Amino acid sequence: MQTSNPMEAILNKLQEARNNGEKMFDFTLSNPNLGVSNAMKSILISVVDSARNEDFGYAPSQGLLSTRQTIADDLNLQAQRNWSVTAQDITIVPGAAGGLCALFKALLQQDDEVIGVKPYFPSYTHYIENAGAHYVPVDAHEDFALNIDNVIAAINEKTKVILLNSPNNPSGVIYSAEQLAQLAQKLTELAQHGQKIDVISDEAYARVTYDSASVPSIIDFYEHSIRVVSFSKDLGLAGIRIGYIETTPNYRMLKLQDKLGAMIRNLGFVNTSTLAQKALLKGLNETVSIEYYQAQKDQIVAILDELNISYCAPKGGLFLLAKSPIDDSGLWISTLLKHGVAVVPGSLYGAPAYFRISTTIDEQQINASKGSWKAALAELSC
Amino acid sequence: MQTSNPMEAILNKLQEARNNGEKMFDFTLSNPNLGVSNAMKSILISVVDSARNEDFGYAPSQGLLSTRQTIADDLNLQAQRNWSVTAQDITIVPGAAGGLCALFKALLQQDDEVIGVKPYFPSYTHYIENAGAHYVPVDAHEDFALNIDNVIAAINEKTKVILLNSPNNPSGVIYSAEQLAQLAQKLTELAQHGQKIDVISDEAYARVTYDSASVPSIIDFYEHSIRVVSFSKDLGLAGIRIGYIETTPNYRMLKLQDKLGAMIRNLGFVNTSTLAQKALLKGLNETVSIEYYQAQKDQIVAILDELNISYCAPKGGLFLLAKSPIDDSGLWISTLLKHGVAVVPGSLYGAPAYFRISTTIDEQQINASKGSWKAALAELSC
Repeated sequence: MQTSNPMEAILNKLQEARNNGEKMFDFTLSNPNLGVSNAMKSILISVVDSARNEDFGYAPSQGLLSTRQTIADDLNLQAQRNWSVTAQDITIVPGAAGGLCALFKALLQQDDEVIGVKPYFPSYTHYIENAGAHYVPVDAHEDFALNIDNVIAAINEKTKVILLNSPNNPSGVIYSAEQLAQLAQKLTELAQHGQKIDVISDEAYARVTYDSASVPSIIDFYEHSIRVVSFSKDLGLAGIRIGYIETTPNYRMLKLQDKLGAMIRNLGFVNTSTLAQKALLKGLNETVSIEYYQAQKDQIVAILDELNISYCAPKGGLFLLAKSPIDDSGLWISTLLKHGVAVVPGSLYGAPAYFRISTTIDEQQINASKGSWKAALAELSC
Repeated sequence: MQTSNPMEAILNKLQEARNNGEKMFDFTLSNPNLGVSNAMKSILISVVDSARNEDFGYAPSQGLLSTRQTIADDLNLQAQRNWSVTAQDITIVPGAAGGLCALFKALLQQDDEVIGVKPYFPSYTHYIENAGAHYVPVDAHEDFALNIDNVIAAINEKTKVILLNSPNNPSGVIYSAEQLAQLAQKLTELAQHGQKIDVISDEAYARVTYDSASVPSIIDFYEHSIRVVSFSKDLGLAGIRIGYIETTPNYRMLKLQDKLGAMIRNLGFVNTSTLAQKALLKGLNETVSIEYYQAQKDQIVAILDELNISYCAPKGGLFLLAKSPIDDSGLWISTLLKHGVAVVPGSLYGAPAYFRISTTIDEQQINASKGSWKAALAELSC
């Protein structure tokens, strides 16, 4: 029986296989597999150990002032904006997902439109619809680079937000400074003609890049820019839920951060984990080993190369977007599944000819999966 | 200048006083002041210390199966329902606020109505409006007991949910088993005639009761009942955000818990803190000392008694709802504020003749505030 969501059959099969004790190679996961660094673990323990009573209580909706200041200081040091980032430019959020939901609710009205770029994280649609608005994703270039003409062409009077995601989930593409500057210039012209469009930049993978690639941000080029950052991957705090929203000085007078605080209360988030916020005071840069993630990625790449399966070479993130070796990508994915390999259909990300492979699997498992990949390909080549 | 929200002026004054180093007695707080128990602190440390990598990763949206089972087992033991509670009746949520937001979104359509009872927690309005529905609070009896006639009279064809809160914030009233059984009977009759109304019971203070009072739940009387429970107050985990939703066996076929899982993803909550979930496996009943909260409450009661200010004697919760000693409750609250005592206007809870006093202030501070209370009263008696 066909199910409406192509993931449902895959997840059911995975569950069934697990229940039967069968071996499955699960490349659907978006779960970081390295946990936290040892230093972060020690910091978390010391935070609990030395916690005062109020450290377990409710925190301000926008986050602890000390944590907001710590992040602002770090941005002044590391990102080196052309302005001084202050605590009032930072709101602590329970992860990028919560941050995006609060932001969309703060910025959008009923039937507004948000332009995004394919491929995109599928939950965006829900986050935007929660705010009563509509998501309008446009095609990227063939190599998944930002297609600025497509973005600009999609703008109409209902457009309030452009949503970027770099490093991109699932393609791993990083948008270049040149592209971002060009987009910023066009949007600045529009703003001068009266249509002020906010750009939200989802930078959940900003510190997960390969070969130490740097990630330019639209915030350095366009004053109506908002960054959404997560500590789920770089610090390994996915399950503990923490990230932040950074805005430009332009938003100080608009009191967007105050509005975000109200949204965090009204949407039921209340506050971000107080213990995670305390941990950031000392552990903001205690990233896990990105080299491990790169090694896992390289190993999957080696299998794909060996099998002559083409893919978008990622510069960051924790995924590989690979092209189905046959025209019928649904058949390819179900054949892989039959042979014990679960991946996610690219159709969920607006890239139906592709499939997404998570690179958060340990090397031993990746190696062990090789035979299954080959068997699936062999079956379809017959 | 008059501000639209009566709390704004109070919070501004509090902030201003703090900035000037002035002494203020802040009775507006809803922040538990006892932290966590020592046992819970040890459990939290051991959870971090022994965490495997996956314990820091994303958890299933509905919560870890082990934590859901632990809560179900505890309910079978302590609450003794007439049925066996299973893990599938439990969804772990990031606090009662998040749980209510997910529930309203799962149960309500555009322009549906939710009947509540005064006095009520003001955020309810936001949570319900997030789901596109409307909140219709009705009057309680004079002593804040549940007025069933008022609830039933407010039902129309748009009514989809009745929202109860016992122990009540801010009155501290516990709805009796007789009242709940009577309401259940009337709603069961309605259901038999085709109008099935869900009752959501916000039981955030279920384990914070005075003189060990027990809290009857509508879930024992009415099959279309949903409990929302928080660990913010009893376990002191407010800042870490954890609670759960319990449904009756009636909802298993309706797959409400599955739908809640989807809502937890789509609303940006993603999952409840994995570390808090792990802590519940061992610490589910490691409550803070409710006796301390009772002592704090008794001490405030002593001041009110001495000043002849009448109040609703709370049976649970962390608040006192007291009646303004003069007709103009706004004047009373601003006079108190002038003398260094901050409280919350009852108008925010649908009880304009009253004011709310938080009992989460340590005894020394409560004692020290006595003179300020007296001075405010003296000024108005002149």
